[in-house]
Amino acid sequence: MKNYSEMTKEELKEEKAKVEALYKSYRDKGLKLDMSRGKPSSDQLDKCLPILDALTSKDDYHASNGFDVRNYGLVDGIPEAKELMASIMGTTADKVIVGNNASLTLMFDSVARAYTFGVMGSTPWSKLSKVKFLCPVPGYDRHFAVSEHFGMEMINIPMNEDGPDMDLVEKCVSEDESVKGIWCVPKFSNPGGVVYSDEVVKRFANLKPKAKDFRIYWDNAYVVHYLYDEEIEIPDIISECEKAGNPDMVYEFASTSKISFAGGGISAIASSKTNIEDILKTLKMQTIGSDKINQLRHVRYFKDKEGVLKHMKKMADDLRPRFELVCDTLNKELGGLGCGTFTTPKGGYFIMYTSLDGCATRIIDLCKEAGVVMTGPGATFPYHKDPDDSIIRISPSYPSVEDLGQAAEVFSVCVRLATLEKFMA
Amino acid sequence: MKNYSEMTKEELKEEKAKVEALYKSYRDKGLKLDMSRGKPSSDQLDKCLPILDALTSKDDYHASNGFDVRNYGLVDGIPEAKELMASIMGTTADKVIVGNNASLTLMFDSVARAYTFGVMGSTPWSKLSKVKFLCPVPGYDRHFAVSEHFGMEMINIPMNEDGPDMDLVEKCVSEDESVKGIWCVPKFSNPGGVVYSDEVVKRFANLKPKAKDFRIYWDNAYVVHYLYDEEIEIPDIISECEKAGNPDMVYEFASTSKISFAGGGISAIASSKTNIEDILKTLKMQTIGSDKINQLRHVRYFKDKEGVLKHMKKMADDLRPRFELVCDTLNKELGGLGCGTFTTPKGGYFIMYTSLDGCATRIIDLCKEAGVVMTGPGATFPYHKDPDDSIIRISPSYPSVEDLGQAAEVFSVCVRLATLEKFMA
Repeated sequence: MKNYSEMTKEELKEEKAKVEALYKSYRDKGLKLDMSRGKPSSDQLDKCLPILDALTSKDDYHASNGFDVRNYGLVDGIPEAKELMASIMGTTADKVIVGNNASLTLMFDSVARAYTFGVMGSTPWSKLSKVKFLCPVPGYDRHFAVSEHFGMEMINIPMNEDGPDMDLVEKCVSEDESVKGIWCVPKFSNPGGVVYSDEVVKRFANLKPKAKDFRIYWDNAYVVHYLYDEEIEIPDIISECEKAGNPDMVYEFASTSKISFAGGGISAIASSKTNIEDILKTLKMQTIGSDKINQLRHVRYFKDKEGVLKHMKKMADDLRPRFELVCDTLNKELGGLGCGTFTTPKGGYFIMYTSLDGCATRIIDLCKEAGVVMTGPGATFPYHKDPDDSIIRISPSYPSVEDLGQAAEVFSVCVRLATLEKFMA
Repeated sequence: MKNYSEMTKEELKEEKAKVEALYKSYRDKGLKLDMSRGKPSSDQLDKCLPILDALTSKDDYHASNGFDVRNYGLVDGIPEAKELMASIMGTTADKVIVGNNASLTLMFDSVARAYTFGVMGSTPWSKLSKVKFLCPVPGYDRHFAVSEHFGMEMINIPMNEDGPDMDLVEKCVSEDESVKGIWCVPKFSNPGGVVYSDEVVKRFANLKPKAKDFRIYWDNAYVVHYLYDEEIEIPDIISECEKAGNPDMVYEFASTSKISFAGGGISAIASSKTNIEDILKTLKMQTIGSDKINQLRHVRYFKDKEGVLKHMKKMADDLRPRFELVCDTLNKELGGLGCGTFTTPKGGYFIMYTSLDGCATRIIDLCKEAGVVMTGPGATFPYHKDPDDSIIRISPSYPSVEDLGQAAEVFSVCVRLATLEKFMA
């Protein structure tokens, strides 16, 4: 098939009539498909079910330090859960606090603490006239939603193939005291699937922030979420920050939401001991401890990082065909047409489609009309504003393989139609 | 035995020598006993173990609305968990959000939201020069710790036999716009075991606060925690507030920490639908949902309020002998001596000992020296300041019955010694 940009007006008209007919045929099917949500599939969750049996009434309920997990206490978590989460994150247990099921809560609460109590004795952000966060884009909508909810000013940082534009990050951080943080997903970023290079991680660790209470919010959400056998590693940001003389500059987050159960996993925050102590001052007022029974259940099932990695291969066996089906369909349906590009990630939860400028909203609308729900336009940008209107996040994880194939076909038709409309406008 | 206040100097001297010898004999035993913590005992937790088997890999994992609890979603909780917590709290499921294991977190977060975002559009408390909370005393140390952590000014409200001094509450609330809340434990209060009377509850519901963002923080921590068959009920504060034209004035809290597992239960906040919507605006940014697997596990085990009440009778069978042993020992060892008074509660987790003025710290110190840890002096007052130095919280729930008997004896000796010292000073 000829590239749309090389077609004559007549050819475009003919192609458009064909694609419109195709689109109508899909629309008439009354489909109800959804590629909008980065949720694990039922197949994947089925493989996690044995976790529920890992702590029964017949099992010992003591943590490795003899503590009865059924009772109050251990605000920072049971030792073996700290150990497990530390090993996944590539750090040590003494730098970890284990939380309940949502790492999002740990992130939100870290920002909330800074607003009300400040960071290690700094002025609480609620007392400042302006707080700014750097937002590598495209990025995770819920990070930006937290910043927006707190009334921060968000500054877009373009993403390159090896991570955020570090020249710009360094400039913003070193010049402006109101820049208090940056949201990072360093491995298989949401939605671009970018893995930060060693150089980018080291440049992060060597930032010279003007604000003493600047922190990197390092959301290592996909730290062991490989689609293939290749286990890509990035440097441990915490030890890199130590080496660079910035030991307190990073908060790292992770969870088992996409390892065990999205609806009932465990989470963790890791940081320097000084930060951990600062966090615990407030956390001790906020809780008598997270759910330690679930912590022990997780450790009993996974045992250690090896156990997690072995389990993640099973998860990958479910995810990989879904990712490949979408990529194959896009290749087949859109290859050579010049309608945009897409990523073929090696891990994480998303495929990112980059349409021609100004087409993303129209593609998403067309999909919706044809019964395929995509993540809303602009969702991966602060304030929902995609400056080029070109980024679409595709989430292949949740639908059945059958549904997914059809959804990817519909999506491809919508891409073609929107692109043709652009060319003919 | 003669009342100490009626003894001659000589008799006091003689008695003191006797009690001192007794004290030394206990001290020399090198005891390690603890009556300081309101924690469930291992015996009690053993009876909760079957909860762990209520949701296994073989069970259906769908909520009553068909939702897969293993996955993301339902920020306010699964319908049947909302129903269960609502029935315990005496309200309806549409007014409930189910949280993770700690109701303390729900309380802390409610205060934190008010500080950063305000309450239903009011000025965030962080922007105010002063925020005051009313604190019925003696009360729960962790309530006061939250207020202190946020830098509030706490105002003591004396407790009567039927609840807080409502004349004073009404006066403070109606006159001072900086009074934004009051901490209440309306049933079997911590530590006094007071059950608010119907009249007190109704007076609460009819408060006319000067501050629009004033809320009653109604911590119904011991709502089904009866020691005897008598199931004492108090009016539902939420419907009372509705009736009084103050539908939004109360946040109610409860948890299963002392019903199922202190280390892994579920919690709830209940309020008017308008408040719930206001809370959800922020909660949706903070989490994608609490642990729904644990919610379903709890509902599968307890089924309904009847199931909870039946289970609580088993808990009472463990607690009652402990409470009675302490009360019997205090009666036997201190009866008629005029060394103070103590409560004999019908529910909850604490016995409150009221010593003669100025003796509490000394009693607690003597206990400590003899190897019996009591809750620290002043713990049940804001800023740890017990104005009369007379209130001691006794927690009989955690120690074994054997330990408890000995601890109560040691405590009695310490009370006698401190009282004698006072009389002879």
